[in-house]
Amino acid sequence: MADKGFFIAQLPRDGVVTFLALAREKELKPKRNGGLYLHLVLADRTGELDAKVWDNPQDTAALFERDDIVKVRGSVELYNDRPQLVVQRIRRCEEGEFQEADFCPASARNPEEMFAELRAFVESVADANLRSLLISIVEDADVAAPLKVAPAAMRVHHAFRSGLLEHTVSLCGLTEAIVGRYPRLNRDLLIAGAILHDIGKVEELEVSRRLGYTTRGQLVGHVALGLEILERHTARLQGFPIELKSVLQHLIVSHHGELDRGALKQPMLPEALAVSIMDLLDARLEQAWALIDQAPKDAEWTVYAPSLGRQLYRWQGGTAGVSAGSAVAA
Amino acid sequence: MADKGFFIAQLPRDGVVTFLALAREKELKPKRNGGLYLHLVLADRTGELDAKVWDNPQDTAALFERDDIVKVRGSVELYNDRPQLVVQRIRRCEEGEFQEADFCPASARNPEEMFAELRAFVESVADANLRSLLISIVEDADVAAPLKVAPAAMRVHHAFRSGLLEHTVSLCGLTEAIVGRYPRLNRDLLIAGAILHDIGKVEELEVSRRLGYTTRGQLVGHVALGLEILERHTARLQGFPIELKSVLQHLIVSHHGELDRGALKQPMLPEALAVSIMDLLDARLEQAWALIDQAPKDAEWTVYAPSLGRQLYRWQGGTAGVSAGSAVAA
Amino acid sequence: MADKGFFIAQLPRDGVVTFLALAREKELKPKRNGGLYLHLVLADRTGELDAKVWDNPQDTAALFERDDIVKVRGSVELYNDRPQLVVQRIRRCEEGEFQEADFCPASARNPEEMFAELRAFVESVADANLRSLLISIVEDADVAAPLKVAPAAMRVHHAFRSGLLEHTVSLCGLTEAIVGRYPRLNRDLLIAGAILHDIGKVEELEVSRRLGYTTRGQLVGHVALGLEILERHTARLQGFPIELKSVLQHLIVSHHGELDRGALKQPMLPEALAVSIMDLLDARLEQAWALIDQAPKDAEWTVYAPSLGRQLYRWQGGTAGVSAGSAVAA
Amino acid sequence: MADKGFFIAQLPRDGVVTFLALAREKELKPKRNGGLYLHLVLADRTGELDAKVWDNPQDTAALFERDDIVKVRGSVELYNDRPQLVVQRIRRCEEGEFQEADFCPASARNPEEMFAELRAFVESVADANLRSLLISIVEDADVAAPLKVAPAAMRVHHAFRSGLLEHTVSLCGLTEAIVGRYPRLNRDLLIAGAILHDIGKVEELEVSRRLGYTTRGQLVGHVALGLEILERHTARLQGFPIELKSVLQHLIVSHHGELDRGALKQPMLPEALAVSIMDLLDARLEQAWALIDQAPKDAEWTVYAPSLGRQLYRWQGGTAGVSAGSAVAA
Amino acid sequence: MADKGFFIAQLPRDGVVTFLALAREKELKPKRNGGLYLHLVLADRTGELDAKVWDNPQDTAALFERDDIVKVRGSVELYNDRPQLVVQRIRRCEEGEFQEADFCPASARNPEEMFAELRAFVESVADANLRSLLISIVEDADVAAPLKVAPAAMRVHHAFRSGLLEHTVSLCGLTEAIVGRYPRLNRDLLIAGAILHDIGKVEELEVSRRLGYTTRGQLVGHVALGLEILERHTARLQGFPIELKSVLQHLIVSHHGELDRGALKQPMLPEALAVSIMDLLDARLEQAWALIDQAPKDAEWTVYAPSLGRQLYRWQGGTAGVSAGSAVAA
Amino acid sequence: MADKGFFIAQLPRDGVVTFLALAREKELKPKRNGGLYLHLVLADRTGELDAKVWDNPQDTAALFERDDIVKVRGSVELYNDRPQLVVQRIRRCEEGEFQEADFCPASARNPEEMFAELRAFVESVADANLRSLLISIVEDADVAAPLKVAPAAMRVHHAFRSGLLEHTVSLCGLTEAIVGRYPRLNRDLLIAGAILHDIGKVEELEVSRRLGYTTRGQLVGHVALGLEILERHTARLQGFPIELKSVLQHLIVSHHGELDRGALKQPMLPEALAVSIMDLLDARLEQAWALIDQAPKDAEWTVYAPSLGRQLYRWQGGTAGVSAGSAVAA
Repeated sequence: MADKGFFIAQLPRDGVVTFLALAREKELKPKRNGGLYLHLVLADRTGELDAKVWDNPQDTAALFERDDIVKVRGSVELYNDRPQLVVQRIRRCEEGEFQEADFCPASARNPEEMFAELRAFVESVADANLRSLLISIVEDADVAAPLKVAPAAMRVHHAFRSGLLEHTVSLCGLTEAIVGRYPRLNRDLLIAGAILHDIGKVEELEVSRRLGYTTRGQLVGHVALGLEILERHTARLQGFPIELKSVLQHLIVSHHGELDRGALKQPMLPEALAVSIMDLLDARLEQAWALIDQAPKDAEWTVYAPSLGRQLYRWQGGTAGVSAGSAVAA
Repeated sequence: MADKGFFIAQLPRDGVVTFLALAREKELKPKRNGGLYLHLVLADRTGELDAKVWDNPQDTAALFERDDIVKVRGSVELYNDRPQLVVQRIRRCEEGEFQEADFCPASARNPEEMFAELRAFVESVADANLRSLLISIVEDADVAAPLKVAPAAMRVHHAFRSGLLEHTVSLCGLTEAIVGRYPRLNRDLLIAGAILHDIGKVEELEVSRRLGYTTRGQLVGHVALGLEILERHTARLQGFPIELKSVLQHLIVSHHGELDRGALKQPMLPEALAVSIMDLLDARLEQAWALIDQAPKDAEWTVYAPSLGRQLYRWQGGTAGVSAGSAVAA
Repeated sequence: MADKGFFIAQLPRDGVVTFLALAREKELKPKRNGGLYLHLVLADRTGELDAKVWDNPQDTAALFERDDIVKVRGSVELYNDRPQLVVQRIRRCEEGEFQEADFCPASARNPEEMFAELRAFVESVADANLRSLLISIVEDADVAAPLKVAPAAMRVHHAFRSGLLEHTVSLCGLTEAIVGRYPRLNRDLLIAGAILHDIGKVEELEVSRRLGYTTRGQLVGHVALGLEILERHTARLQGFPIELKSVLQHLIVSHHGELDRGALKQPMLPEALAVSIMDLLDARLEQAWALIDQAPKDAEWTVYAPSLGRQLYRWQGGTAGVSAGSAVAA
Repeated sequence: MADKGFFIAQLPRDGVVTFLALAREKELKPKRNGGLYLHLVLADRTGELDAKVWDNPQDTAALFERDDIVKVRGSVELYNDRPQLVVQRIRRCEEGEFQEADFCPASARNPEEMFAELRAFVESVADANLRSLLISIVEDADVAAPLKVAPAAMRVHHAFRSGLLEHTVSLCGLTEAIVGRYPRLNRDLLIAGAILHDIGKVEELEVSRRLGYTTRGQLVGHVALGLEILERHTARLQGFPIELKSVLQHLIVSHHGELDRGALKQPMLPEALAVSIMDLLDARLEQAWALIDQAPKDAEWTVYAPSLGRQLYRWQGGTAGVSAGSAVAA
Repeated sequence: MADKGFFIAQLPRDGVVTFLALAREKELKPKRNGGLYLHLVLADRTGELDAKVWDNPQDTAALFERDDIVKVRGSVELYNDRPQLVVQRIRRCEEGEFQEADFCPASARNPEEMFAELRAFVESVADANLRSLLISIVEDADVAAPLKVAPAAMRVHHAFRSGLLEHTVSLCGLTEAIVGRYPRLNRDLLIAGAILHDIGKVEELEVSRRLGYTTRGQLVGHVALGLEILERHTARLQGFPIELKSVLQHLIVSHHGELDRGALKQPMLPEALAVSIMDLLDARLEQAWALIDQAPKDAEWTVYAPSLGRQLYRWQGGTAGVSAGSAVAA
Repeated sequence: MADKGFFIAQLPRDGVVTFLALAREKELKPKRNGGLYLHLVLADRTGELDAKVWDNPQDTAALFERDDIVKVRGSVELYNDRPQLVVQRIRRCEEGEFQEADFCPASARNPEEMFAELRAFVESVADANLRSLLISIVEDADVAAPLKVAPAAMRVHHAFRSGLLEHTVSLCGLTEAIVGRYPRLNRDLLIAGAILHDIGKVEELEVSRRLGYTTRGQLVGHVALGLEILERHTARLQGFPIELKSVLQHLIVSHHGELDRGALKQPMLPEALAVSIMDLLDARLEQAWALIDQAPKDAEWTVYAPSLGRQLYRWQGGTAGVSAGSAVAA
């Protein structure tokens, strides 16, 4: 495997550099004094960079496609206070020369480690029928493979490689915490709800170099795709209790909580209420911190997040101690 | 203090009994063959009972008012399969003869014990300014006294004596659980949010023998009354940080989560999001189990709960093990 | 099979009669002068009748249960201008003594005849894969049997025995009419949509003597149950095209038309739009005429229909010719 | 009349051409090396083309106005892979030199032919009063003339010249189809509803070279303008039945179906329900196919349509046979 | 004309009385000891009274119909603390024996006086065309006669005889007040808007002994009926300016203010905004005081008003001086 | 104080000018032929102007910051028909050299004059407690100072310097007008409502060179900030009646009228209804005329106002007489 070389966020401000990047945009443009040049946007999981090819732009443009990974060599220059790259050499990389995960935002956690955690939660389920079902699902290669890489959403929350798995494992952990406070809750059902509620997203969302919906995802949606996976696996298990199956279907169709937010049924068991509300908590907190972390260092407010309909407050007191650094009232 | 005597749920099905009860309804009605009788509904925190006074109904009716606590002696009879009481003697009880809490639904937990827990949560707050404020509030007699008895709502959830305190302490505990899973959350703010978000309810809701809104509660509401309490106490504390005060006000005005559900502002800090969602979780679970516990033993569904817009499913599998007793699919 | 005897709507206004009826209500009540009598409400598909048992009420009450079919003999009397029955003899009927359909409202059309029509629509599907699938589903005994008796809804529209089948066949016929006007529409998909969109109702709704939701129906809903049936049958068909399956799933999840009316996805194909809108047309017209037919003969307006949020206008001009009988404007 | 010359969609990729076009945009812009040039956007009903005038830009700009029809001669060149025109000669055309319909999108059907169809539907109305009224309206020059050219909407559906007439005639035809399936529907009322429901649009929408609302249209709307036309014509007919008039007014005010979608009254007759739902069907299908036809040949999805809140799926299986070309599931 | 005799609100608590009343309810009921009696509810514009006929109930019942005005003689008795009448003689009154207005709630103001005020407002309009139009409308017998008696609504506000006129004149007066504060407002248009916005209610609402919608009112609604009246009268006026007509139509179709509250168009002129908001103010205040005046003397809160979604606070401080009688805060 | 010099709206179309302006935008841009120039947008309360610095752009850019007031000298030139300034000299102005109000839109009325009017309204309050409270508030320097400059909103209505005060005084005046028509309204409460309903905006909105929310404003909002001010001042007044305080709090929390428009409580007193509706009237009319005044002279329609969801009609007849200049209908 070729070395990735520099990550874009760590590029020096000048000098000649060589590194791998995703060719996110590629366009021939007219030069001010006639002729053409090739305009590129290069990207990796740390950021983006404008690049220009002045020599042989048309031949160069034919060497690779948008969304290819390229190996590029060039000199970094400042333009309007922002670095750009003047390209000297560029070529398409083949599969095997790079790691997909270097080129799109990804979970900070190792997918295999998270999967092992998930596996342990499955093993801890007390009910034999339910445990068998969950094992059957998470060991199904058609589920396990995409589960390790799929995002939990295209935007909104956990919108990065392995985000679905990170969200799922986080919810399983939250289960332990909640069951400790509400011992009447059935732990088995909570684990099942944490794992199954979004499982259809393994078929709904593509993890290529651009996050996107699959055609099936757009036509059918992750709720119906999750029901399909559940049906496929309960059909394989001899004597799976029909009542338990209904309850698991209910956890899937009710997890959006309200009919006007995509739920086919409102949650009707305490466990369905808990899964739906914990799902909301985990999604909202991840989204909040992602917004906060993306804001400039000294910004008091994040950008406006359309899916939340608000900006978030980036309070220093939240980390520094709630009284620290505050102006004091007379 | 007079002995309460029998609780209504434990009355024998026949025989002469003496006990204390709340006179919930009182009405003179015409007898089928002319003349009047006195119809009563007697109640305590365990249930209700119809009662009839055949002799001297008008004189008897003058002895006490609706909502008085009465001492009653009479014989239990079955009428249409339900017990009723034929009253022999009845008189009004004076303050001191009875314990208020015997006559309306109340928390299963001891209020003083819960208050001590709350006090401990307050002491555990790390920030000195915030700790001083919370101590000032919970030790204010105008807050502490009603807090020990107020319900958290008239209907919906924790709609019983000391329900507000039970809900508050439960949320504080939930905080510990959540902070363990999301260490970026500021524990001090979560404790403050748990205690302050509904604190205005100490002035909004009356705990007399009928739950009800006070006039101030109906005109102004618990959000504004909570802000008033906060203002009163921050005004007393020299040098309370203005930024922290704003954040506490934000926790109060945002705790209903959405503008169309009574929030003046949407939650804009991770901690405000967490308080609002945990509040929902605790309220929904308490309400769900209350509905489930009130349903007849073999009912599969609870009554329809208008505030939820649904019935809840009373699944035996939830307690007996998710596969137990289930029909097995072929 | 015992003779049904009189239907309630055709009972004479006096005299002794014998007939079969559903015991819809059964309650012991106190007589004005002491003692008890047995109050009954008897019903068949034509209406209801109050009945009273004055002799041996308690023994009589033990002979049958609410919702049993009973054979009753008694004399008809007028009470407050309405007929009631004074019961002389009453006993429970056994299975085989009566026809279920006599005791609840049912389609005016013969279920077997409608099923044959449905079968013919299935045969007319041009695409072999789709035709095989539809045959597999409608010949599945778990589908065909309940399909012949299920209502299309508990209230609202086609809320009677075999209403689902009547609605389905009506939609198939509408398909022919629409395809004639819009030849770009794919007839095969429209037939499939007409048959599959509500197919989950065969498991959602019970047709016993009271219409009602099954537990699975209430927890999971007919959309998810329809997807389950589709999954079960596509799994049995070797090489069923995955794209076609996605489109069929889309027809099911989108047929309520709008996200806030229960659709998981908005219709995204012309055929999905057409199925959803024709479904609305057929449901609304059936409901409208049912309301109109139930109104008294000379009523200008029907009762208020909560599901429509309106009364309907019962215009004589609609049938008699639009100018006939109208007052003429000066 | 001057020859139109090339239509824009059929222009050669190079060479000198002469043709008539609408000057949709006209703006003087600075050249890179100083001085000005004239930037134009030329349009006809088949598409748009950028054009540039390098010589005498200011004098040329004075020769015509935005929205004029111009005769232009120039050479076609490729710029960034898209053709543009370098103008040599350009001049304003006078009325009589061109056909309006060449320059904005128009119905594929001949307006006179459609009007004849409409006239036949009117003649087929059985009720003499209603037939006289409809004849009076469609033969009114103030209605007939704009009806032949008006669009049915500015955006959304049938948003092209004669779109209103195409929509009206299509609905009349749909009436025949529906009456065949639901013989209780009154055919006369359906025809009247199809013709009258949108008739106010003849005064609401302008058909000039830009679709747009008239001032009356924007202030009063097509519902009230339709009522005005109806009032004007019933006033002229001696003895028009008042009840029938009320029903026709009802068809107009209820045709948007729901109060929150612009209906003054919900549909209260079966015929009003049918008109409103068929209107929706015809509008949605036209809009869907327009979106599908405008999408690039190999696009699986159309652009996002804000008025629908969705993209549409452009399924090849819809035309090629539902199984054709599909990937086959294992 | 017969003397009305006592009004129900002023009846003595015992003794024999004779008076005229509306027979709102009339029903034969079984007596406790067999046989029948006649139960009546008598009403006039001041209230209601239960009445009973013990002798010859069936013959008596045949003497008059529900909603007839009757002359009744009987003795007042207390029953369960409420007065009721034991009827001795009762008979139907003929037209001419009574004044309609005594038997349903009516405006406290004299209709002729209010009409004269309205006439004066019309005369004060400066623009000759507009003045002619308004004169034409208010002098049209088909408008003037019902305008003097129609209510402004069936429930909600001004729901009494002549309520529409009272509301209209009140709005005209409010116009003067508002124009004084906002001199840019056109007074003529405000007067026109006050008079025309609800004018269709003269055909929408019936003023018989029961308030109710006419069939036209229910099918077409007062907005469309108002447009019809406007059309009829502008058609009679030679050369009425079309722009002014459009603006008047706009005032009618926009007066409900918001599309989801029944407006066909949102108000688009300052005068249309003002008419719509003043209409709301006048309606809300009348409704508020009606609720307050109907509440028992010492009630702090009115009944819950479904159309407002709230109870109103009956504050003594509002009349007695805002500090008077208030508890004083420590 | 330096002379402001020209206002931007009055600049000559050529020649050399000197004036003061706000530097709203400041950006270095590449010249077409290499090197950089400095692009500026200059603004004052009358408008905006593009400006360019060709010489020493980088040094010049270092002389001042965005949002500074600058003194600029340069020559006016036309570019694409719009004037722009070629800068010769530019420097930052110090406090004292200019009047803030010259650089942002401001009320047409003098703030001190309006404040004196407000003071007079306060003095006119009859109730001593209420008068004392209002004096305490409007004489509080923390209120009075920002009240004289704060806008009433960032957008929507009265969005200019001193807009809050203008809106408040306008509402007080409207009070007089309304009380004249509805003598049951309590004038004292209306004055209090007019003054207090938006008083929190003195802390919510900043009046710097850019209108904007304060951090407290964004977190807490003007409703809660208004409650805080009320609490602070009632706490200072010995024996302020608690009932009156509740009613004042109610006026603040209810003034948005509807729960889904930001009200914590719906208005429950006639005076609360009146304040909320008059607030709407004053806001809407100001906004309407602002839109109308900003539209080009001969435009029939204003721009689309997103907060209103509509364009407004700029009717000449509104000012010129409703028939004047209108086309006359045949």
